[in-house]
This record gives sequence, structure tokens and C-alpha cells, in this order.
Amino acid sequence: MLIDRTDSNFSRPSRAILLFSCPDVKGIVAEVSHFIFTYNGNILRSNQHSDPETGTFFMRVEWDISEFTLPESKISRAFEPIAEKFSMDYRIEFSSRTSRIAIFVSKLDHCLYDLLLRNKEGEIPGEIVLIIGNHPDLKPVADYFHIPFHHVPVTPETRMDAEALELDLLSKANVDLVVLARYMQILSPSFVETYRNRVINIHHSFLPAFVGAKPYHQAFERGVKIIGATSHYVTEDLDQGPIIEQDVVRVTHQDSVADMIQKGKNLERLVLSRAVKLHLEHKILVFGNKTIVFE
Amino acid sequence: MLIDRTDSNFSRPSRAILLFSCPDVKGIVAEVSHFIFTYNGNILRSNQHSDPETGTFFMRVEWDISEFTLPESKISRAFEPIAEKFSMDYRIEFSSRTSRIAIFVSKLDHCLYDLLLRNKEGEIPGEIVLIIGNHPDLKPVADYFHIPFHHVPVTPETRMDAEALELDLLSKANVDLVVLARYMQILSPSFVETYRNRVINIHHSFLPAFVGAKPYHQAFERGVKIIGATSHYVTEDLDQGPIIEQDVVRVTHQDSVADMIQKGKNLERLVLSRAVKLHLEHKILVFGNKTIVFE
Amino acid sequence: MLIDRTDSNFSRPSRAILLFSCPDVKGIVAEVSHFIFTYNGNILRSNQHSDPETGTFFMRVEWDISEFTLPESKISRAFEPIAEKFSMDYRIEFSSRTSRIAIFVSKLDHCLYDLLLRNKEGEIPGEIVLIIGNHPDLKPVADYFHIPFHHVPVTPETRMDAEALELDLLSKANVDLVVLARYMQILSPSFVETYRNRVINIHHSFLPAFVGAKPYHQAFERGVKIIGATSHYVTEDLDQGPIIEQDVVRVTHQDSVADMIQKGKNLERLVLSRAVKLHLEHKILVFGNKTIVFE
Amino acid sequence: MLIDRTDSNFSRPSRAILLFSCPDVKGIVAEVSHFIFTYNGNILRSNQHSDPETGTFFMRVEWDISEFTLPESKISRAFEPIAEKFSMDYRIEFSSRTSRIAIFVSKLDHCLYDLLLRNKEGEIPGEIVLIIGNHPDLKPVADYFHIPFHHVPVTPETRMDAEALELDLLSKANVDLVVLARYMQILSPSFVETYRNRVINIHHSFLPAFVGAKPYHQAFERGVKIIGATSHYVTEDLDQGPIIEQDVVRVTHQDSVADMIQKGKNLERLVLSRAVKLHLEHKILVFGNKTIVFE
Repeated sequence: MLIDRTDSNFSRPSRAILLFSCPDVKGIVAEVSHFIFTYNGNILRSNQHSDPETGTFFMRVEWDISEFTLPESKISRAFEPIAEKFSMDYRIEFSSRTSRIAIFVSKLDHCLYDLLLRNKEGEIPGEIVLIIGNHPDLKPVADYFHIPFHHVPVTPETRMDAEALELDLLSKANVDLVVLARYMQILSPSFVETYRNRVINIHHSFLPAFVGAKPYHQAFERGVKIIGATSHYVTEDLDQGPIIEQDVVRVTHQDSVADMIQKGKNLERLVLSRAVKLHLEHKILVFGNKTIVFE
Repeated sequence: MLIDRTDSNFSRPSRAILLFSCPDVKGIVAEVSHFIFTYNGNILRSNQHSDPETGTFFMRVEWDISEFTLPESKISRAFEPIAEKFSMDYRIEFSSRTSRIAIFVSKLDHCLYDLLLRNKEGEIPGEIVLIIGNHPDLKPVADYFHIPFHHVPVTPETRMDAEALELDLLSKANVDLVVLARYMQILSPSFVETYRNRVINIHHSFLPAFVGAKPYHQAFERGVKIIGATSHYVTEDLDQGPIIEQDVVRVTHQDSVADMIQKGKNLERLVLSRAVKLHLEHKILVFGNKTIVFE
Repeated sequence: MLIDRTDSNFSRPSRAILLFSCPDVKGIVAEVSHFIFTYNGNILRSNQHSDPETGTFFMRVEWDISEFTLPESKISRAFEPIAEKFSMDYRIEFSSRTSRIAIFVSKLDHCLYDLLLRNKEGEIPGEIVLIIGNHPDLKPVADYFHIPFHHVPVTPETRMDAEALELDLLSKANVDLVVLARYMQILSPSFVETYRNRVINIHHSFLPAFVGAKPYHQAFERGVKIIGATSHYVTEDLDQGPIIEQDVVRVTHQDSVADMIQKGKNLERLVLSRAVKLHLEHKILVFGNKTIVFE
Repeated sequence: MLIDRTDSNFSRPSRAILLFSCPDVKGIVAEVSHFIFTYNGNILRSNQHSDPETGTFFMRVEWDISEFTLPESKISRAFEPIAEKFSMDYRIEFSSRTSRIAIFVSKLDHCLYDLLLRNKEGEIPGEIVLIIGNHPDLKPVADYFHIPFHHVPVTPETRMDAEALELDLLSKANVDLVVLARYMQILSPSFVETYRNRVINIHHSFLPAFVGAKPYHQAFERGVKIIGATSHYVTEDLDQGPIIEQDVVRVTHQDSVADMIQKGKNLERLVLSRAVKLHLEHKILVFGNKTIVFE
């Protein structure tokens, strides 16, 4: 059956997505595609990558499981022998499973609105189940979109208690992904560890240029002709995590710091939304401090 | 007094903006700048352009009037002799005067949200005083932003009555600029005439490629590798008005029409907002079927 | 053995590249990858695409044949049963086989220089074996790069004779690809038929905007804010062939036609070179009037 | 008389270009434009900029001197009183005066070819009078374009002697601008001082990211999604001089260091050529460690 051209994500067939990395040897693709064919799956999309330095092979394969002869719950077990044979580090995702998203904010609303609107339009999949603010300012936005808002103030003295509360909220809401939408607080190593490769931040510069605070002021001082924004997974090292997406915009001597901040808002919105979308579509593999993005 | 670097539009000094076109002769800049200096104005920004084909000179000059020795109400009269001497077609705008904006919509909300949010943030100046929809769907958005919404249905039979009602609403609200934010109706020549160079539309293609209906479908059929969006002033000829701003994004064979529509939404938002901002900052001169944009 | 990171194309292993289209059914990838594994090949890169409208499946797979147990000359025959089973339209290319390129020019040299320099640097693979000019002006360039140059004048009366001579030169030089590097002549349908999907042209506009002659003049007249260039396969319909690559650059009211021509030269160079490179790397499948580009 | 639309630089009228910076007070534009009008000049282009932090005003004004009643040789003296009145730091350039350019190279030829070809086409004005290489490899390129080539080897021991020789060559050739076209040597502070704001370098990264050696390797290690190139004036601090122009290109996990180097070559070419063109058109003012580029 042919898919209608104007069909949206929502009417697509049920799909499984396998992502893995393993030592690069012959026969991996043959075995994986044979597995899918054996149970009557139809491959919709497949991407590979080899890292010649470390001899590592990466693959993402997405297949139609609407006629698959294995139920979702048994696919992983059936695949296990292949994973073992090739020493794969793997995971299997299902389009039927809706990702649950929490957004952390402070006072700036541009990234928050962007995520909410794209989610509403279906561009960003998943369900935004929780908004946490260290300030109460953005509660009305959450209300308008009918999403629970929690005000969790953070001070140097209360940081660990605040994080404990946040982790509890995330856990109870069964959250898969945390998005820092211009959230102006640093997360502790234990928070990062709990949500390893599941916390996405937007940094308002073209990293690694202008790490740390006030990057637009730094860019203004240096007199650059292009400014950027960078979306990355959060690690223990500030602004050093694996980069998911970046983009840039031109500036001139006419642009004040205020102008750069305004131009940068567009970038921040776009770059963060793209990164979140890629993550939720299960298109990213993290390898060392880099990402492999199978677009 | 020096302006603070992080200062926003709102704290800028009072400014006057003179825009004109006239036959290109010597001495125009000297006379205009002397006029400003005579009354103790400080030129903040000045742009010129000459069209060699028609021998026409264009200029935009923006000056600080906080110490100007003429009140705003008398500047135009004082300038009149210079305008006559050089046969100028001119206008003078003041930063103290807030532009009044009406937005026309149908069912799609992405451009509407974008305009409302950028206006709220101060990126787009002016006051949005009115939203008119030929469908009632976007009334809740207007409500959330506390802007009056009027549902004016349009059918082939009622078109002229509907336009009469719209024109009445615009007139009563003293509207300066009409923005068609993916408004799916064609305006009559008399409407266009009434708001000549004051109605901005967003067309969802890189004009003049793909005029008319369903441009993304047309782009898909042709197999282009880049799609675009175009913001222009509305004239009697559909999709033929003076272009204000355009931008593009890459597509590949992987992109369905639905994907192009989604990618295009970002473009439409950005391109329309940029055009509206340029208009409201009085940076556009229309000349024939082209625009001179003094960025 | 790991490949050195700064390794160039020249030291890459011998590779085979299979390209095909066929009706979309289950099991294609499994069978193809099993074939490669059976003869001890290592898949380096694989791309698929499904066209939902026509139910067509497309694939490109590139594999290391340095330890393949079939010689190059026998691979196609061994693959034949699979091709028949799935009703594939296919071809197999080998990295060991150097493509032979002819460039057609008139008087403009910017695209010619660009192709010659990129070829010399190894960015564009293959061997440029022939340059044909309908004017003699660019012979010194050909001489500098030690490539045979043939002056084949074309007039309305001598067109068919000129083409016969060109076809003879191409045939004797065993040419695989003809690049029209701003060649200002139209090829006859029989020429196009002989080199179907093997003649690449650069059109100096963002097609389908501004087909035909003097596109920069047309763009100037329309007052567009962005100009483009388009590389496409040549078909019987002027400027209507399958698009391979496009790119754009911003222009303003300050840009005269002469400025647009100058800005456009950069685009033409880049877009033509990218298209030629993609073709020579066997990354393009033509389907109807579109291209599938497996980057 | 109207200028033909397809007219090139070469047929433009004689022009004078005044560039200055001074404390920002009222009346500067009026006085400068009056000066030009007094002697029967026609302003073709004028740009201003104010730096609010330091209260500095910058201006570039270009005027037609074909009917100017002062000869070129007397313009500067006549302008002197105005310059003194406003404490201007100024210079006056003339389109009749051809800039003399030296290019320094090592072994890479892509930037050299680009500059030579654009100069030949008239895109980059001026005369390239000298090519100096610390290796002899690119002499044939210089020969092809009929430009004197000097091989000046540089070793740690002979550096100062080599520079003395270079300075002598530059001085004898009356050179105005030195372009480092991927020249792999550091210039001494005294060389920099002699040609202050007249030595343009291309750095193969998006500065200030990846200063120093092997920026593409650094970018590869960090896993950035965008690489860049930066053209700047050379100062005593390596890679820290005033930035003139920057541009970027996307990379993915598929790009090896070799791929980045290849993609980067395009950027380097474009960015260096644009910077050189801007300099030679007298469109750049250096202020502190930044540039004001009046495009």
C-alpha cells in the first residue's frame, strides 16, 4: 500500500528503530537485514557509518512492523543473539511509544514557546509532560498550553534539595528527555549521570568559541562577523558535551550586543528545536564526545 | 550622552526618519544634512541609492530629535522648500508615533504566533490592534494575547460585503499596516488601492518560481533542491508585487510534500517577520515594482 | 587495518558501487547485503530511498572489494539472478575505472578553471580528456593544463555537421561525461539521446525561475532578493532536465546586473563542480524528471 | 549621463573616497557633504557608523570627481580645515590610483589561483605585482599569469634575513597590500608594524575557535557540525587581529579531516578574496581590534 504524499507522521505505519555500534567486521548489514526480513519487516530507512580510527561500525535501521510476525515485546530478545555475535551496544525504539519530555526554563520564553508550538503542530514528536522553572515567570505560558508547571527555586544553599525535588518530579512523570530551554542553572554531576545523553542544552554561541557566560558580549568584543548557537548533550564539563546541532547568522559592526541577542534568539530557537527533534526521532548515537546524526 | 550597549529600542532617543526619492543631481545630501544640522539634529543613520537607469536618487536619513529646535509637527513644513527644490517624493516618520497593525489570518497559526511573540518581545515594533480571520479558528490565540479578533467569513457571493466590513474595521482602528499571515483570500483592487504599499503578504515559494496555488506541490513535482518563501507588497497582480524579503532552505529527494510544508513554515515565519519589521522601521522605499531596502 | 584520517581518495581501497531501482518489496536489502557478504565484501556505505507514489525502491551500496572473491569482471554476472528476481534497473561501477570527461566551453572561463583546478587537486575524480570550444578563446587554458582542445565553430547552417564532429571526438576519446561549462549552444535531441543522463549543464538562475536567456537581467527586472544557479542533466526540453544541485546568494537593490553576473559566477562554479563531483562518484539516480542524490 | 547597467568597474567615473573617524558631534555630515558640493562633486555612496561606547563617529563617502573643480592633488589640503575642526583621523583614496598587491605563498595553490583569476576578471581591483614563496612550488602558476615570483626560503636561522629581503622586494615594488594566501610562516613584529593594517591573512577556522595549528584536526576532535574560515589583518598576536570576513560550511560525522580540509578550501578561497576585495575598494576602517566594513 502506498503512503499518501501529504501524509503526516501520525498516519505512518508502526515502526521499529534499531540503533547500534560494534566493531567493524564483514556481514553486519547482511545479518541485520536478514533478521528483519525473516520476521516480515520492510526496511524504510537505513544508515551506516564507520569510524576508521577506532574500527567502530554504527547503524540505524528503521522498519515497518505493521506486518511483523514478532510482537514489539519480543523483538529485543529475538535480536539478542545477533547483538552478542557482533558485540553490539544497541537499543530498539518503537514509534508506538511516545517520548515524555520535561522542559527546564528560567525567565526567557522564546525557546519554550518554540518547543511548545512545534510540538502542538506535530513537528516535534512526543508529549511535553512537565515544565520546571527556577523562576515562576513562565507559568502562564505553561497554563495556556495546559502543561503542569513546577516552580523550583534554586539558590547556592538549596541547590541539592532543589535537584532532589526535580529528580523526583522527573521520575514520577516518567520523563525520557530533559530540555534546558535557556535554563540558567548548572546541573550536578549526579543529575547528569542519571540522565546521561538525555539532557539537551542550548548554548548561545558557536561552540567552542565563547564558552561560559555572556557569549554575545564576548562575540561583540572580539568583533566576529558571524554569531552562532550550539545544541549539545549536557555532561559534567560545562559547554563541553557532544554537539548535536549548530547554526550561525551574520552580524556587522552595526549590531550592538542587544542586536546580537535578538538575532541570536532566532538561532537558539531553531537549533534547540532541531536537536530535540533529532533526539526524539532516535536519529542520534553518541560516541565518545561526538554525535553521529543519521538525518 | 552615550547609549548603553545593551539598550533596547524602547530607550532609544526620539528620532525622525526622512525617506525620499528625486531626480539625481548634485547637492542633495549637503542640503538635507544642513537642514538637520540647522535645527540641531544629530544624524544617526543615513543611506543613499542611485538608480542609474532612471537617474533617480533615494535617501533615508534618521536623526536624533531630542534636542531638535523644531517640534515634530513643524518639521515637515520646514522641510517643504527643500523637497520642492529637488522635486522630492518624500515622507517623514517619527519614532514617537506607534504604528498600528492588523493581521489577517485563515486557519494556519505559525505566522500569527511568530508575529505576536516577536511583537511582545519588542523585536517587531508597533501595536497589533486587530486580528481578522475568515475562519474563527484562531480566536483563542488572539484572546491569549489580548487582541480583538473579528471573524469575517468570505464566500464568492459575500466577498465585497466582507471587504467593506474589513475596510471599516481597519479604518475605525486607524490601521497603518495590514499583514496577511497566510490569509487564504485574494484582496480586491480597490482594497489594494486603499492600502497601497501597506499590505504585506507571505508567499510560500521562492517567487517568481511557483506562483499561484500549492507551490510546495509544484516544487516537489519539479524536483528542486531548494525551496523558498517570499514576502511582498500586495498589488493587483497576484504574487507579482514588489518583493521585500526572501529566504530559502535545502530539500532532498527524501522530503515529501508534507516535509516541505513543514520546512517551509520556518521560512514563512522568518521571512514575513523580517519584512514586517523592515516596513515598521521605515526602511523600505517602493520604486516601480521593486523595493529599496535600507538595512 | 584502520584508514589514516588524512587519507585522500587515492589511497582508498578498491570499491564496487551498485545502484538500482526496482519495485518496493520486502527482502531487497537482505538479499543484496547477503550477496556482498557471500563473496567477502565489506559494505562501506549504503543508502536507500522509497518513492511512495510509485512504489519504487532505490539503493546505492558501496563496498570494499579488496578481498572480494569475485573478480570485477564477474560481479555483474553473479548479481544477475538477484537483479532479475526483483526486476531491478541496475548498474555496477568500480573505483578502479577512471571516468573520462569532456568539457564544452564558449568564451567564459570561470567554470572551466574551477573544474580543471578541482580535478588537479583530486576533489573531482576522473580524467578530463577533451575540451571543445565553439570559440577558440580558451585554448590557452587547455594548453596550460595539457588537455587537448578542439575548436568546433557552430553556426545555424553548420550545427548538424558540428555536432557530428563533436560526437566523433567524444566517441574516439571514449568519453563518459560531457560537462557544459557555460557552453552557449543548444544540443540536438539526437545528441541528448546519445548521452542521456551524461550531459550536465549549469544554468545561471534558480530554476524554474528565469528559464531561457539572460536570467540575471530577468532577476534584476523582477527585483528578487536572492539569485541562484542550477545544475541539471540536459534533456530535449531546454532548462527542464532533472535538477542535480542548486545554490543561492543574496542580492540587494545596490546590485546592478553586472554585480549579479559577478556574484553569480561564484555560484555557477560551485554548483556545477558539486554536480559533476556527485555524478562522478556515482551518487545520482535519475527517476522520471528528478534526481535521487545519495550524499 | 546614465550609466549602462552592464557597465563594469572599469568604465565607472573617477571617484574619490574619504574615510575617517572622529569624536561624534553634530554637523559632521553637513560639513563633509557641503565640502563635496562646493567643489562640484556628486556623492555616489555614503555610510556612517557611530560607536556609542567610545562616542566615535565613522564615515566613508565616495563621490564622482569627473567634474570636481579641485585636482586630486589638492583635495586633501582643501579638506584639512574640516579634518582639524572635527579632530578627524582620515585618508582620501582615488579610483584612478591602482593598488599594488603582493601575495605570499607556501605550497598550497587554491587561494593563489583564486586571487589571480578574480583579479584577471576584474572582480578584485588592483595590480598583483609580486608573488613571494618560501617554497619554489608555485612559480609555474606565477609564470602562467606573467607575475614575477621570488623564492625566499625561511628557516629559523635565516628568518630575519629572509624578512629583510622580503621587505626590500615589497618596498622596491611599491606594494600597498600584502596577502598571505596560506603562507605558512609567522611575520615578525617589525614587519607587521611596517605594513600595519595592510597584511591580510586567511585562517582556516571560524576564529576565535581553533586558533593555532591544524584547526581542521581540532574541529574534527571537537565534533563540530560547522567549520569556518576567517580573514583578518595580521597583528603581533597570532590569529588575534581585526576580523574582516568569515564564512562557514556544514560538516557531518561522515566528514574525515581530509574532507574538512577539502570543504574548507572553498571557504578559504571565498573568504580571503572577499576580504581582499573589500580592502582594495577602501571599504574597511580598523578601530581598536575590530573592523568597520562599509559594504
